[in-house]
Amino acid sequence: MTLEKYRPLENSLLTFHDYIPRFLNGTDNPREYLERCLAQIELLEPKVKAFVVMNIDSARKTADASTQRYQAGKPLSVVDGMPFGVKDLYETIDMKTQMNSPVYKDWHGIRDSAHAFSLRQGGAIILGKTSTTEFGMATPPPTRNPYNYNKTAGGSSSGSSAAVGASMIPAASGSQVRGSIVRPAGYCANFALKPTFGAINRGGGHSLAPSQSVLGVHAGSLEDCWSTAFYISSHAGGDAGCPGLYGNPTISESKNPGTIIRLDSLGWDTTTDSTKEAFEVFLEKLIDRGVEIISRKDDDRIKRFEEALREIPEFLFRMLGYESRWPLQDYQLSHPESLSQKMLDSLELGLSVSVEDYRSILKQRQQLRDIQVSLKGIAGSFLLLCSCDPPPDYPYIGDPVYGDVSSTLGAPAFSLPFLEVDSLPVGIQYMGYPGDDYQLACNSKWMTEIH
Amino acid sequence: MTLEKYRPLENSLLTFHDYIPRFLNGTDNPREYLERCLAQIELLEPKVKAFVVMNIDSARKTADASTQRYQAGKPLSVVDGMPFGVKDLYETIDMKTQMNSPVYKDWHGIRDSAHAFSLRQGGAIILGKTSTTEFGMATPPPTRNPYNYNKTAGGSSSGSSAAVGASMIPAASGSQVRGSIVRPAGYCANFALKPTFGAINRGGGHSLAPSQSVLGVHAGSLEDCWSTAFYISSHAGGDAGCPGLYGNPTISESKNPGTIIRLDSLGWDTTTDSTKEAFEVFLEKLIDRGVEIISRKDDDRIKRFEEALREIPEFLFRMLGYESRWPLQDYQLSHPESLSQKMLDSLELGLSVSVEDYRSILKQRQQLRDIQVSLKGIAGSFLLLCSCDPPPDYPYIGDPVYGDVSSTLGAPAFSLPFLEVDSLPVGIQYMGYPGDDYQLACNSKWMTEIH
Repeated sequence: MTLEKYRPLENSLLTFHDYIPRFLNGTDNPREYLERCLAQIELLEPKVKAFVVMNIDSARKTADASTQRYQAGKPLSVVDGMPFGVKDLYETIDMKTQMNSPVYKDWHGIRDSAHAFSLRQGGAIILGKTSTTEFGMATPPPTRNPYNYNKTAGGSSSGSSAAVGASMIPAASGSQVRGSIVRPAGYCANFALKPTFGAINRGGGHSLAPSQSVLGVHAGSLEDCWSTAFYISSHAGGDAGCPGLYGNPTISESKNPGTIIRLDSLGWDTTTDSTKEAFEVFLEKLIDRGVEIISRKDDDRIKRFEEALREIPEFLFRMLGYESRWPLQDYQLSHPESLSQKMLDSLELGLSVSVEDYRSILKQRQQLRDIQVSLKGIAGSFLLLCSCDPPPDYPYIGDPVYGDVSSTLGAPAFSLPFLEVDSLPVGIQYMGYPGDDYQLACNSKWMTEIH
Repeated sequence: MTLEKYRPLENSLLTFHDYIPRFLNGTDNPREYLERCLAQIELLEPKVKAFVVMNIDSARKTADASTQRYQAGKPLSVVDGMPFGVKDLYETIDMKTQMNSPVYKDWHGIRDSAHAFSLRQGGAIILGKTSTTEFGMATPPPTRNPYNYNKTAGGSSSGSSAAVGASMIPAASGSQVRGSIVRPAGYCANFALKPTFGAINRGGGHSLAPSQSVLGVHAGSLEDCWSTAFYISSHAGGDAGCPGLYGNPTISESKNPGTIIRLDSLGWDTTTDSTKEAFEVFLEKLIDRGVEIISRKDDDRIKRFEEALREIPEFLFRMLGYESRWPLQDYQLSHPESLSQKMLDSLELGLSVSVEDYRSILKQRQQLRDIQVSLKGIAGSFLLLCSCDPPPDYPYIGDPVYGDVSSTLGAPAFSLPFLEVDSLPVGIQYMGYPGDDYQLACNSKWMTEIH
């Protein structure tokens, strides 16, 4: 792995699961682990600006309690003692939830969101709220890329990806409607899971586009990413009416993915040459290791799928606008001058969409999903990029277009920090069929090992 | 119709749509209409206790503005000037949202829920918050039945049904997870629509069981009920990812329903004899008018459907418990002694349900839905009761078991105030197939006319 070269500092804070044996044998403990995180935060946070608010006193108390449990040989769960950042679109009982909007300035919910609550129940340390774009959609926060402070950390899960990328914390929550998990994860060299739609409980979250918003996890290692996501889904459930994450609590198998479909459809035209080249080199490496990579040149069904994916932008913005009319229209009236022009533009577009239009859009999206599922006989998974480029200059947060593929399909995707482009991190997006999150995790493990 | 005999006072406040010509020709106006509502509230609210909080100053101002619009011949919509009650599980920008729980005592959201916002946009008057059971599930509010103050108004849409039943307001919102719209509507002689799952935007609502919770409308007339529900869905949309209510803005057709399946399955065994008898008399009346009523005796597929419906209680409580673990567990920890024993029992049950159990439950529910849809060739709609009995003595809120049928199926159902049992109101539940809400409305109009 070439990943290490990006790390801003020499340390191994980013993994958590492999410290557990040391916590249990007393050579390390969660309080010490937390203090190392806090030292890293003290060092880098002034530049990276990943956190909106923190609760350090509570974190230290929680870490001490966790330390005692490990010393007694009785940790509560795989996340016991793990410092964690909660994306600031999600409520926390002890910290404000402000969504990078003046509308929610100083707003304080009275509960933990479902994932924050379940993590606390398992002994995790909710260290702070991580920055996001305005309502997860527009104005970027001040957050910078830990690998180059002039560059963006991406959005909307800016703070989570930057905090993990800067080794400040081992894991954090993200959420995605378009590309808000996979792109920032790629830019900051995180592992991340954007799960199957509905697989992790969004309760206590404030998404403006609920029909394809998902909650996911950023982490410094694939193992932490999966085990944390699986822990949350097992304890908080998926969204109501959804079956939650299938699979095992940890990735128990490293598995060659066999045949993979490469997707260079939506997003490819605006991808930089150096990014394309890094993608090709990665695919060659997989081929060398016995993976079969197929494309539209090999099967017309793939060609038709790629053509269909290119239709996404035709309906996506109207769909997002329609779904976010409420509450944006309410906020616009109750808090004049508080929404950015980008939010107002989205609202205006949304108000122009009729219910009949919206029904057509839902059908069009479902057709795409049906086409994807029809490819199951051809290959078990898909490879595409997380972004068109390495992280661009702040304040531009980058183009979420590659994320639109997995988001629109409701399909699971891992962001894998495998590429280096122009001396900056770029992620591989490894996508599966809805419900196949665990299969993807096992294949991702294999790819991480051979990378 | 025998309905009038139940009205506690001689007045016709309960209809709204048929006042609009008078508003337009100047013989009446929304401010006068509101004042008549307020007079009725002053008279009956001390006994009925339908409202948790009201905003009368704002209501009068809104009514005056509406009056001016009618005088200029330019009302904003079919709901312009209509006094409306919002169920206290839904947020309002100008009033607290407390959910009959100490956890939310004095809690004040910063926005209107989607339906309240869209109604205000159309000129409706959000007069107050109507009482509900604890989180829509447990401890009843003080609300009494307007037809007999010793009796319940039902639950959880207690306040909305009582306020409409007492002629205090022409319409109000309700929501249903089990029987929380149809039963109280029946007990208080409202017309009500529990729509197809997802057909009316629940944004800004706090349901504990999101996978089958729906938002609906109570009204004093079928016309107001439909046109208000349709107005909300047209302007606020359905839930994200759902197509919203199909049909026309008003019920433009009165239509003989043709063949109807009678359901005396789940709930029938505990239905009182006098209630059963009233149901039979009503069916006979329909038969006299040319409707074909069929039952399990006529077709084995109906028999199998009825047998399947009897399985609902086997999984329903585990499902509700599972979906409400969060946030109840959070509330229990953050607000000790604040949840009722009934809520704690539900939480305990929910915590015993594994994710595998929940997946099985979702499959079982889907199978029931598939069975219903397979009956489309046999009949276009279904008739059953709204409750097992006339309203029982307060504080018992009655058995929601009949509502479990339409709720579990995600199917639309009108509550029609057609029966009188032991000198009290009992509702007919007229159920269709998902998406057929408007068809049901046209058939309900026909039934209302012949009743």
